[in-house]
Amino acid sequence: MSAATGAYQKRFRDLAGLYADEAAFSAMRENWNDTVVYEVSEFRPNERSGDLIFGTTRMLPGKVGDEYFVTRGHIHRQSDRPEIYYGQKGSGLMLLESPEGEVRIVAIDARTVCYVPPYWIHRSVNIGGEELVMLFCYPADSGQDYDCIAKAGGMRVRIVDDGEGGWKQVDNSSWRKRDAATIAALYGLEKKEKSA
Amino acid sequence: MSAATGAYQKRFRDLAGLYADEAAFSAMRENWNDTVVYEVSEFRPNERSGDLIFGTTRMLPGKVGDEYFVTRGHIHRQSDRPEIYYGQKGSGLMLLESPEGEVRIVAIDARTVCYVPPYWIHRSVNIGGEELVMLFCYPADSGQDYDCIAKAGGMRVRIVDDGEGGWKQVDNSSWRKRDAATIAALYGLEKKEKSA
Repeated sequence: MSAATGAYQKRFRDLAGLYADEAAFSAMRENWNDTVVYEVSEFRPNERSGDLIFGTTRMLPGKVGDEYFVTRGHIHRQSDRPEIYYGQKGSGLMLLESPEGEVRIVAIDARTVCYVPPYWIHRSVNIGGEELVMLFCYPADSGQDYDCIAKAGGMRVRIVDDGEGGWKQVDNSSWRKRDAATIAALYGLEKKEKSA
Repeated sequence: MSAATGAYQKRFRDLAGLYADEAAFSAMRENWNDTVVYEVSEFRPNERSGDLIFGTTRMLPGKVGDEYFVTRGHIHRQSDRPEIYYGQKGSGLMLLESPEGEVRIVAIDARTVCYVPPYWIHRSVNIGGEELVMLFCYPADSGQDYDCIAKAGGMRVRIVDDGEGGWKQVDNSSWRKRDAATIAALYGLEKKEKSA
């Protein structure tokens, strides 16, 4: 990504509140606080409709308690915009959640392509023992909305160590089902009704 | 690409007229006529504006005379749409030409990302000794226009063996500079004037 036009980094301290085990998170702060857990490097030609933004995302391996490292996750502000991920290195999952709360999980290893359909909230998870590196590409006018996850108390499931060298999904007890108005807004229907 | 929704193949006989050395092309027909020189496998969720189409393209290594195998090439019918290529295997070039005839050449090896900006005609070239495999991604409403190359007598330069194990560009003697009206049409200006 020698032509990258931008980048951002998330340090461990920026991820407070993402994980179920807050005691484990606090205990890890001593050694991890300033560590960059994941970083995004991107090429953004412009934000004109019809153009594309692409880049790479890199995430360290690790767990908070038994929960694997995750990105914050987002839905596109223009929620009908999709995204494509492509695994370069490591072993990850794409955790997908529809506005209604349907969950899908897609494994992403090296050379896997993952298409995130329009309207799906998504977050990546590093379930491997090495860095997870992925390319991504999305329409330049997509935008990101992170609040829809925070407002629901997180995503519906968490990805944890199954104690046998693999992973399993467990329910996130803080998650609350979205009401009909919130779901409609995520589908962009609210706006249409207002302008109609 | 286990989820591909479509594919097409180009056999050697489909590529008549692309190469400078027509005698060499004819001579190769005996052995190559039905051989698939390149194929495209794609996932096309739909053609709605804001969605994305992606897939893989594979091209055999080879030359017609001293000219390396190429794809037909295209500009997007919606000419302001970009495209992203990512090298998976082999050694290739992306040959780019603006409507005015400016030429740019980008090397694509494994793990190279190539961004084809809006309004650029593009064609890939296999300059290696093995299959060239690339991922591609473009906005779902882009479309393809192949005529703009045929009408100009091909692309402005050809990529040939330099006789020293590498490649060089040579002028395509059949190429004709586009006139102002044709250039304007490729930028979508003609249409705007008509509708204004």
